[in-house]
Amino acid sequence: MGLQLYDLAGAEPERRFSPYCWRIKMALVHKGLPFDTIPWRFTDKDVIAFSGQGRVPVLVDRDQVVFDSWTIATYLEDNYADRRSLFRGDGGRAATRFVNAWADGVLVGGIVRLIVTDIVANIDERDRAYFRKTREERFGMSLEKVTADRETNVLAFRKSLEAVRTVLAAQTYFGGAEPAYADYVVFSCFQFARCISLFPLLLEDDPIWAWRDRLLSAFDGFARKALGYCA
Amino acid sequence: MGLQLYDLAGAEPERRFSPYCWRIKMALVHKGLPFDTIPWRFTDKDVIAFSGQGRVPVLVDRDQVVFDSWTIATYLEDNYADRRSLFRGDGGRAATRFVNAWADGVLVGGIVRLIVTDIVANIDERDRAYFRKTREERFGMSLEKVTADRETNVLAFRKSLEAVRTVLAAQTYFGGAEPAYADYVVFSCFQFARCISLFPLLLEDDPIWAWRDRLLSAFDGFARKALGYCA
Repeated sequence: MGLQLYDLAGAEPERRFSPYCWRIKMALVHKGLPFDTIPWRFTDKDVIAFSGQGRVPVLVDRDQVVFDSWTIATYLEDNYADRRSLFRGDGGRAATRFVNAWADGVLVGGIVRLIVTDIVANIDERDRAYFRKTREERFGMSLEKVTADRETNVLAFRKSLEAVRTVLAAQTYFGGAEPAYADYVVFSCFQFARCISLFPLLLEDDPIWAWRDRLLSAFDGFARKALGYCA
Repeated sequence: MGLQLYDLAGAEPERRFSPYCWRIKMALVHKGLPFDTIPWRFTDKDVIAFSGQGRVPVLVDRDQVVFDSWTIATYLEDNYADRRSLFRGDGGRAATRFVNAWADGVLVGGIVRLIVTDIVANIDERDRAYFRKTREERFGMSLEKVTADRETNVLAFRKSLEAVRTVLAAQTYFGGAEPAYADYVVFSCFQFARCISLFPLLLEDDPIWAWRDRLLSAFDGFARKALGYCA
């Protein structure tokens, strides 16, 4: 039996939008490891209770249960060391931590503020009350208010990506000539948006668009084939 | 003859505050390469005209002239490959690009907005008019106006460092168990401020403070001994 990944799903079982799951799916195809995904919803806490916590991704590899995307990525790198590397060395692994931390804060945080109403519209009905309640508590306002000024706020979001453009002006991928886990981390945030929202985060003439397009095409269009929007 | 580095200086020749020069000085001591610095001022364009451009750091290594901090770092890594590595592999080098881009934009940009009036006060008299003119054009306002609300603005600056804290909660340095070039890049921005301003960017209970303190102590207190303030 191959690897199994518990993967956040929306109203349609095939709508998979978690940025943390996406980076692991990209890591798995990067390493050429066969895997199955199990659609999971926010309120399915009991389904992954065996992992000792309540969030996805959860990876099951025979008798090993691994959760937290960073922990899973390093698990895959260490346990499938003969496969194509995600970090190309300890120096790469250490520095990728910063990309990961920045993406989780600035990117995921910034994107959620722009599309959170689209998330509500596309998640499973039984998740909606839970999602709205926890997120409105976090933001201290209605989700509609969070996204009300998104046409203006997206301009500041695009400016916050300047370091990404600087990297891509100098090299094809975060990983250099080839994609590495740092690419999948950043890509996963845009893929999250693409799978659940029509709101245009990136403009077509943005170099980040072209880089994202290369990753959408990678591995026989693995990410492009996902159920989503064309944003 | 050892390496020579043209290094931005303030009113006192020993006040060296450029973040781009600091990261190279840290890289040089990391590699254990002896070097001399040559104090240089913003308006000394003719002094480094031999490099074909007008900014420091400029590194002279026998018949080689190298400028731009990233180019110098990779030059040192490739030409002194037998010395302690700055990147620990191509994966580290590629991912460190992002740390470098983020530091130059968010960190240097954020810090300059908080201390630019202190820079004017501490640079050489003959640089002041040039510095004020070019920076006021860039900001579109007087430098005094830029820093007027810094007591408030520093709070947002500190928040912008969250990804740094996430990394340092997980590992001792950006480089992992030991410092790497990514550490020197981020450190250089705080060292820039420390050398030219009393304004407290970091609070003492910030984990970034403790990490910076370790780097101030590194290499027999190389950076701590620099002429600066105690901020």
